[in-house]
Amino acid sequence: MKKYIYGIDVGGTSIKVGLFDFATVSMIEHFEVETPKAKDGMMIFESIYKIIIDCNQKIGLNLDDILGVGIDVPCPVKNGYVESCANLHISNIDLKVEMQKYLPKHIEVAIANDATIAAFGENASLEKPYNNAVLITLGTGVGGGVILDGNIIEGSTGFAGEIGHIKVYHESNKTCGCGSKGCLEQICGTAGIIDFTKELLLNEKSILDVNQLTVKSIFEAAKNEDVVALKTVHRVAKNIGIAASIISMVIEPDVYIIGGGVSKSGDFLLSLIQKYYKENARFSTGKIPFKLAKTGNNAGMIGSALLVKNLVTGKLNNE
Amino acid sequence: MKKYIYGIDVGGTSIKVGLFDFATVSMIEHFEVETPKAKDGMMIFESIYKIIIDCNQKIGLNLDDILGVGIDVPCPVKNGYVESCANLHISNIDLKVEMQKYLPKHIEVAIANDATIAAFGENASLEKPYNNAVLITLGTGVGGGVILDGNIIEGSTGFAGEIGHIKVYHESNKTCGCGSKGCLEQICGTAGIIDFTKELLLNEKSILDVNQLTVKSIFEAAKNEDVVALKTVHRVAKNIGIAASIISMVIEPDVYIIGGGVSKSGDFLLSLIQKYYKENARFSTGKIPFKLAKTGNNAGMIGSALLVKNLVTGKLNNE
Repeated sequence: MKKYIYGIDVGGTSIKVGLFDFATVSMIEHFEVETPKAKDGMMIFESIYKIIIDCNQKIGLNLDDILGVGIDVPCPVKNGYVESCANLHISNIDLKVEMQKYLPKHIEVAIANDATIAAFGENASLEKPYNNAVLITLGTGVGGGVILDGNIIEGSTGFAGEIGHIKVYHESNKTCGCGSKGCLEQICGTAGIIDFTKELLLNEKSILDVNQLTVKSIFEAAKNEDVVALKTVHRVAKNIGIAASIISMVIEPDVYIIGGGVSKSGDFLLSLIQKYYKENARFSTGKIPFKLAKTGNNAGMIGSALLVKNLVTGKLNNE
Repeated sequence: MKKYIYGIDVGGTSIKVGLFDFATVSMIEHFEVETPKAKDGMMIFESIYKIIIDCNQKIGLNLDDILGVGIDVPCPVKNGYVESCANLHISNIDLKVEMQKYLPKHIEVAIANDATIAAFGENASLEKPYNNAVLITLGTGVGGGVILDGNIIEGSTGFAGEIGHIKVYHESNKTCGCGSKGCLEQICGTAGIIDFTKELLLNEKSILDVNQLTVKSIFEAAKNEDVVALKTVHRVAKNIGIAASIISMVIEPDVYIIGGGVSKSGDFLLSLIQKYYKENARFSTGKIPFKLAKTGNNAGMIGSALLVKNLVTGKLNNE
């Protein structure tokens, strides 16, 4: 009989729930609901449980048909444990244990950080997945995830893959959201991109309208060879390249995957990042390929489903 | 019957060979011989084989008593394969296969990079070894090794753990031995330490004799509060601290271990590194402890023995 798994992507605003075929990890159905606004973040588990029951009913499944539930959350996670998650109003809690309370024992639960899960899902979604991959996500913030020997790397307390907070420059004035200075995110996050462009626009001519600046408009203008926009985009690409060259000296992955909203500018950005990476890469590590992320908004659901599938498969093999 | 393993540390000038009890990994005997000068680096395997036979005879053992030979070499290694090793005059060769040709099949061979093996040995030699450890070695060059989930991390082609080539500053003039600029090693390697101090001595008073500058004399002078020496030592400690804060954002290890000749200045340097690390560490990663390496010159032999012991134990368990 066919078996199923859920892949669930919990964000600060919405929860995306995907039902997947266990064997093929193809998505059968998906829903999106609002993340509970209640200050009591514990509501989240009940919400997830209710969505699972609703989805099951819709498709005509019951809990016996489900082998696992994979969940990603927007905060550092270590073995399912979260010290603090401002986005979800929870702290010092074992998410895995809490979720398991709502589910029958035969259903495995896997929980990890969203960018880490995305790295897992994006790598698995490549035509030929790699053993060792690093995802760099460019969006409001800059995040990332590290996969080594096919496994997610969480770090000692869940902070591995915080690529956006690699120190890439020396800065004395501006402080990053993390409280430190010189972070990659200060240059390559949305605010960094827009603020830098605004500064340039004070003195330089451009087709950009300073009152309607968006990351998208800046990348579009750069494609049209606007000098100001090109300066911003090159600065972003250069610093991603430098950060990746540093990562190569720590773990030397087989591939870098570039994802997140900003990566929608596609090969234009990718080729610039790769150019600066090669200029900064040490020894023969300049050969490491760069790929664009493919799964888009579904990365979290797919990655969560894949992670719990691995967990279930591992346990079945050991039985 | 008692079984034994060899742990062998191959350097550019000498080969250190240690005979270890398999069960306890305690060293029973060790020798040091010159690394063959022959341009044909292939001599190395015969040399190692001869030393093993000599040592066996001396102790009254034969090859049946030996379960494994662990070897470290001073170049990047991936699964026993070396693309290029200038120190040993070899290239594009599977060291493991070559060494195995000299040995009976029951003897397992493990080969890895020297700093990676040292990381493995130093972590295992801590009072309580960690799952995830990063060794930073300070000597003529700056090297390192990465241990995750108890395993050595080699990277895609053997360049993982090249901590000395993390870009920590922006430099336009001086080029590092690796061909790039702004490497940690340019500040914290022997040449970087001495050159920077010499520059300071052009304009500043110091107890240091510019004609007899050594890293040791600089660290001694710093302990005696010499202003010039203190500037150099703080610069070294600060940049190690910055590099470690970056590593934490990639893999967040459980511990940093500081080794190599420069680390002989002990707690004086360690506490300064830790101070700058905490200043630069993001989120809660400032809590990660720093330890001094303990095994000194034996790190390579001990690490090599431990690595091959793990390999043998793994195979025995799977039989």
